[in-house]
Amino acid sequence: MIIDCHGHYTTEPAGHRAFRETQIEFVRNGLDLEPVYPPVGDDEIRETIEANQLRLLHLRGIDMTIFSPRAAGMGHHIGDETTSQKWTRASNDLIARVVAMFPENFIGVCQLPQSPGVPIAHSIAELERCVTELGFVGCNLNPDPSGGHWTSPPLTDRHWYPLYERMVDYDIPAMIHVSTSCNPAFHTTGAHYINADTTAFMQLIQGDLFKDFPTLRFVIPHGGGAAPYHWGRYRGLAQELKKPLLRDHLLGNVFFDTCVYHQPGIDLLTTVVPVGNILFASEMIGAVRGIDPETGHHYDDTRRYIEASLRLTPAQKQQIYEGNARRVYPRLDAALERRGK
Amino acid sequence: MIIDCHGHYTTEPAGHRAFRETQIEFVRNGLDLEPVYPPVGDDEIRETIEANQLRLLHLRGIDMTIFSPRAAGMGHHIGDETTSQKWTRASNDLIARVVAMFPENFIGVCQLPQSPGVPIAHSIAELERCVTELGFVGCNLNPDPSGGHWTSPPLTDRHWYPLYERMVDYDIPAMIHVSTSCNPAFHTTGAHYINADTTAFMQLIQGDLFKDFPTLRFVIPHGGGAAPYHWGRYRGLAQELKKPLLRDHLLGNVFFDTCVYHQPGIDLLTTVVPVGNILFASEMIGAVRGIDPETGHHYDDTRRYIEASLRLTPAQKQQIYEGNARRVYPRLDAALERRGK
Repeated sequence: MIIDCHGHYTTEPAGHRAFRETQIEFVRNGLDLEPVYPPVGDDEIRETIEANQLRLLHLRGIDMTIFSPRAAGMGHHIGDETTSQKWTRASNDLIARVVAMFPENFIGVCQLPQSPGVPIAHSIAELERCVTELGFVGCNLNPDPSGGHWTSPPLTDRHWYPLYERMVDYDIPAMIHVSTSCNPAFHTTGAHYINADTTAFMQLIQGDLFKDFPTLRFVIPHGGGAAPYHWGRYRGLAQELKKPLLRDHLLGNVFFDTCVYHQPGIDLLTTVVPVGNILFASEMIGAVRGIDPETGHHYDDTRRYIEASLRLTPAQKQQIYEGNARRVYPRLDAALERRGK
Repeated sequence: MIIDCHGHYTTEPAGHRAFRETQIEFVRNGLDLEPVYPPVGDDEIRETIEANQLRLLHLRGIDMTIFSPRAAGMGHHIGDETTSQKWTRASNDLIARVVAMFPENFIGVCQLPQSPGVPIAHSIAELERCVTELGFVGCNLNPDPSGGHWTSPPLTDRHWYPLYERMVDYDIPAMIHVSTSCNPAFHTTGAHYINADTTAFMQLIQGDLFKDFPTLRFVIPHGGGAAPYHWGRYRGLAQELKKPLLRDHLLGNVFFDTCVYHQPGIDLLTTVVPVGNILFASEMIGAVRGIDPETGHHYDDTRRYIEASLRLTPAQKQQIYEGNARRVYPRLDAALERRGK
């Protein structure tokens, strides 16, 4: 099997988007109104999936995507906690519908109803709902719900512990993923996403979070931001901070995806990061949708880079494609086993 | 010749540090007092340089360092414009003394007296002083003088144009370099530095700055942050934004240094970035001062990675060591030529 651990519903039905646009308009105008969620037909969902993600899954020979709401769409900084709760619930429900319609190809990961300055404990009810009622296998955790102002404490702070406790109870990982930047200094997918990955990794180096939560697991997307490219710097900084070797300090709990859109980047990732810490992913139909003129293939067709790797053995490729995902997402593994896979 | 384009005076004499500590104490306590700059003897400067940077230059076979005040020490966010002006002047004067004492081994690059919310035009007098009176060959430009809150407009904004005009007049490049992070989310050298490099590169992709300033040149330090590792992403984002190929859009004006502290990182850099855009650097006695247990050598002994490169020809190594620096810093080249080098 080939499992893509990082997919977002970037092609949502128009009605879903219209709901959000109306909600934002009400917030911007200070209106205490709630938009009505419009009828979104199964047909619409089927069309947006079949013509896009499912088509590319088939084309690229990928079996399954771990699927969550559009990351840039989470917009935790917009409105207040109530705004975020309602939008998050609608977004997760939509993912649940996709999963129900295409159970062989998609399994859900939830958005959390975070809001700047709001205790993370307020996100737990939705997490519980998604795991216990909707069958989701993980969550996306935004380390910066302010959208580029970085007003939250580091991920190692006790601020986040209530969520971690529940994640451990459910044995689910979080992908560390920011949303749209509202800071003009940071381009959303070109700076904010990558910076957040790098920032999160360094926060984890500075702290000792996994002493408190030995089974907690994070996936750092976009190939770990800058971390693998600067692996020597991070090994050296851990050393300066009198931390254990990265291998012992973090790599039992921290994983990187393969959303790195060129061969030399994937080659670096698979050179410096142990194979057991790499999960296949493409974030397809995401930030970079074009065709690379240097290869003639889509930038985000990351399977090609794994296939072309001269370093990885077939067994290692299978670990990256399937084994690691089943280990990091035990609820996915259980779901697959129930289906005899 | 081997020229290290990225060195900071991280081993400043105690009196210089004490001046700054007193200045910060006065600022913190709201006192309208000015500390007196204490006598700093030539002997002290000689000792701090000979035992540190100069010793390592000799040991590593490097001829010269382009030298500037300690980056983390710039602290543009501390106090107000007057605080920054006084500290900057003292810091640049100290660099000038090092250069005067060791003209064969050091040449100066200045800190700018930036301050959050203050027009960049207020930094020009000090730039002029450093170039025309002190013989400096470039400047360090902080894209985020707020120290991790990112309150300044992108580098492509007209906000920065008065400085660029003067840089073009003098034909000097800027290294894009932030200072200490006062945002607890960002570790200074593990997150803020690298994020700033990535952020600056993406800002330059988004804009068309070099249409307005065809000869303006920036060095992005720390191997360009995350940019080379995600080169496919950046090529693809430029494409989405309908910009020219990176080669044509940026690479006439943007250069990366080699402050990447392990072999695979340098190998990636030299694979994806044209050799003409790479300048040798170590930022030695900086963020990562330890010895890599995997190699037995200092992480920041970057010459070893260049030497060990299997990709680079001897001529290409010489470009990285010397040729590119002389091209990007014409005032350095002129100074060397005057000495018959």
